[in-house]
Amino acid sequence: MKNAKFNILKGLFFTYLFILSFFSIKAQTSGLNKEDVKVIKGIYDESLTSRNTYKLLDHLCNKIGHRLSGSIGASKAVEWTEMIMNSYSFDKIYKQDLFVPNWKRGDKEEVKIIGQKDGELNVLALGMSVSTPKKGISEKVVEVQGIEDIEVLGRDKIKGKIVFFNRPTDQRLISTGSAYGGAVDQRTAGPAEAAKYGAVAVVIRSIGTAFDDVPHTGVTRYVEGIKKIPAAALGVKSADKLTLALKNNPNLKLFIKMNCETLEDAPSHNVVGELIGNEFPNEIITIGGHLDSWDVGQGAHDDGAGCMQSIQVLRLFQKLGIKPKRTIRAVMFMNEENGTRGGLKYAELAKKNNENHLIALESDAGAFTPRGFGVTAEASTIKKFRSWLPYFELNTISYFKKGGGGVDINPLNRLLGTPTIGFIPDSQRMFDIHHSDNDSFDSVHPRELELGTASIASLIYLIDKYGL
Amino acid sequence: MKNAKFNILKGLFFTYLFILSFFSIKAQTSGLNKEDVKVIKGIYDESLTSRNTYKLLDHLCNKIGHRLSGSIGASKAVEWTEMIMNSYSFDKIYKQDLFVPNWKRGDKEEVKIIGQKDGELNVLALGMSVSTPKKGISEKVVEVQGIEDIEVLGRDKIKGKIVFFNRPTDQRLISTGSAYGGAVDQRTAGPAEAAKYGAVAVVIRSIGTAFDDVPHTGVTRYVEGIKKIPAAALGVKSADKLTLALKNNPNLKLFIKMNCETLEDAPSHNVVGELIGNEFPNEIITIGGHLDSWDVGQGAHDDGAGCMQSIQVLRLFQKLGIKPKRTIRAVMFMNEENGTRGGLKYAELAKKNNENHLIALESDAGAFTPRGFGVTAEASTIKKFRSWLPYFELNTISYFKKGGGGVDINPLNRLLGTPTIGFIPDSQRMFDIHHSDNDSFDSVHPRELELGTASIASLIYLIDKYGL
Repeated sequence: MKNAKFNILKGLFFTYLFILSFFSIKAQTSGLNKEDVKVIKGIYDESLTSRNTYKLLDHLCNKIGHRLSGSIGASKAVEWTEMIMNSYSFDKIYKQDLFVPNWKRGDKEEVKIIGQKDGELNVLALGMSVSTPKKGISEKVVEVQGIEDIEVLGRDKIKGKIVFFNRPTDQRLISTGSAYGGAVDQRTAGPAEAAKYGAVAVVIRSIGTAFDDVPHTGVTRYVEGIKKIPAAALGVKSADKLTLALKNNPNLKLFIKMNCETLEDAPSHNVVGELIGNEFPNEIITIGGHLDSWDVGQGAHDDGAGCMQSIQVLRLFQKLGIKPKRTIRAVMFMNEENGTRGGLKYAELAKKNNENHLIALESDAGAFTPRGFGVTAEASTIKKFRSWLPYFELNTISYFKKGGGGVDINPLNRLLGTPTIGFIPDSQRMFDIHHSDNDSFDSVHPRELELGTASIASLIYLIDKYGL
Repeated sequence: MKNAKFNILKGLFFTYLFILSFFSIKAQTSGLNKEDVKVIKGIYDESLTSRNTYKLLDHLCNKIGHRLSGSIGASKAVEWTEMIMNSYSFDKIYKQDLFVPNWKRGDKEEVKIIGQKDGELNVLALGMSVSTPKKGISEKVVEVQGIEDIEVLGRDKIKGKIVFFNRPTDQRLISTGSAYGGAVDQRTAGPAEAAKYGAVAVVIRSIGTAFDDVPHTGVTRYVEGIKKIPAAALGVKSADKLTLALKNNPNLKLFIKMNCETLEDAPSHNVVGELIGNEFPNEIITIGGHLDSWDVGQGAHDDGAGCMQSIQVLRLFQKLGIKPKRTIRAVMFMNEENGTRGGLKYAELAKKNNENHLIALESDAGAFTPRGFGVTAEASTIKKFRSWLPYFELNTISYFKKGGGGVDINPLNRLLGTPTIGFIPDSQRMFDIHHSDNDSFDSVHPRELELGTASIASLIYLIDKYGL
């Protein structure tokens, strides 16, 4: 606790700087490093006028499309991102080899309320789900509000039935990520839990925030030793239709038929591009997103945006003549959605090769207007980052909060203790879109996307220059 | 300058409170009034779960539609908002009578590059524009980047020509409102300026931020003693087409034909609803938006949203049993777009009736995720508002900046010295939409809209309770 008094004073000083940044343009530029102000302005200007992240994302979404691990789309995306980084002549471009789960959605997915006119429901198999028997499953339904209901109901009530998880996301939460986090256990753990009690299949209300009928997929996790049962997500309106039908007739039967399958693990790759540092080339700063997506929509927000932003950060450094002191890496992680094999491989290789990772940042929360960053690091680092808030313009980055990272960079933190940063954009629209057909390029706003790129590039510029 | 030292300390204390609000949930609720925390949480919860602002806006946009002053839509909107407030049994509901400009777009608007295949351009007459002669105008074009070019070119080069204002909005500005503000003089003042030098008509590049071909209208202001010439906005892609055609052939002729007209001023109304204060009924807090819109799209963001938010703030107070100390008014101002007659009438009546207006707030910047408020008031008031920042959750309200109001409430400030507040949502999408067919209900996100309502209601709750 030495220097506590000084730290409080310093804290007040930084907070004061922070406040000034909000309320006075004059104050904003006084006391700041003029060179840094100029560089960061250049980063924002170039991002907003070139719209290059948006152009890259257009290609990824509209020429390649969705990119589930093991799919042709994923292979094409690997090839194309490597080619793009080659065309930019980054200092080093290479792939990291790995094997990924290889789940294929079948061509026939059908859920309907038997005997009900217009009883068809909008459905998507959950990622990694097993198939139903060829003739499908026709069984009674038990509606529950969460996995805790399963144990309460017990084997007698669950056995032989289709379990319907129907707890909506909590609309009261301002962070829709928190709302999603509070409901997603029904998808990830629900099917295994229901199977434990003898259920024959599971349908869930889509984990999303919109009241439309577009189903949202996402991974479900089977548990070893427990039977794998088929599981699917219903559109929210379809879930409402089912719950209403069950009120009228608790003995109704649901028909479910899907022909998805899991093939042998497939070879795939992380793709890495580097600008090599000219002072501390062995100190690595990672910026990444995941190149794989679900097999619906175009994986625009989740997470084509994060990948294109990562490439564009390096491109901005190059275009603006910013020579990094440290080595900056753009990493296209493979297989975030159903295995995290890319993130794990990246961390393993980092450890094996004794790499020195200063910090890693992931953008995987959508291409919306930036709000802040979440940071997992020493308190002194977070304090230092907060002292940089005056460099960010009003309405882009308002805060650095404690705690943050990303699914693909968290293994780096676990294995090497690397500090991590999660980019936090506005969350209101993300879970209307996420893991569904709605996640398409036309839902991305060019300026919002580019403000994200510029915010990340500016933070990386400051970290590269001043360290943690 | 007395108590300067104390003020600095107090300032640091408030800024410190502010910071804590960002970075620690624990800190966020300690030191705050628990009752206020509870009430504000209730406001957000009710807004996000009832989605009542969104339901009201749905009706206004989809059942009534756009609402230019003097139109049937505007009359219907007056009638309907009065009816809605009556159905809520607000304490007092009444109309303020006024006369509004009565401009009508004709049924034929046409601009094309003569002799060019596919030479048709997407066009909308500017609001208040005069008609062309029946047979239209066919003349050569002078392209300029702004009104300052007109004087430089001089009468010789302008006389008898169609002037084409083509300066784009500055994409580098993070606030698109500033970008709009920096380009809009071409629309408001361009036609009168060009007419001064003998131009026969004006076309402008739409003042917007998107690169589509949807033209954006908006008011142009003729100057007394200078000939009124027809003026229209081109879609951005049409403007690009014209500039390219002019490069190939500087002598090309443009054909322009419009049959808009200005009829006699029409009777119309502001609509006012009140909850009467139970301690200081004579102290009035105004919350408003403008009920009129342009005659394209549905006037969803501009400014159906602000009107419905204003009604819903009173409705929230009612539903949650918040008894205001002061009188809270929801005001639907008429004629913001082409005359401000409603705002002027409201201020005149306030003055005439010796009303005591504590403060007025306007929401007229779109239904997007809230960012902050701009405040025109004593420094001590702004300081007090900043001390309330911890009551607002992360990602809703991040700042109170100095300076803010709204076109409809500014007359109240000018005539009575009433402090004013402008609600500031995220601006990235607003000027893609503004004054065009794009401003439709389906561009509004329900959660973003409701977060705006809740932010305004929470601020009004604190102002009502604690004063300025």
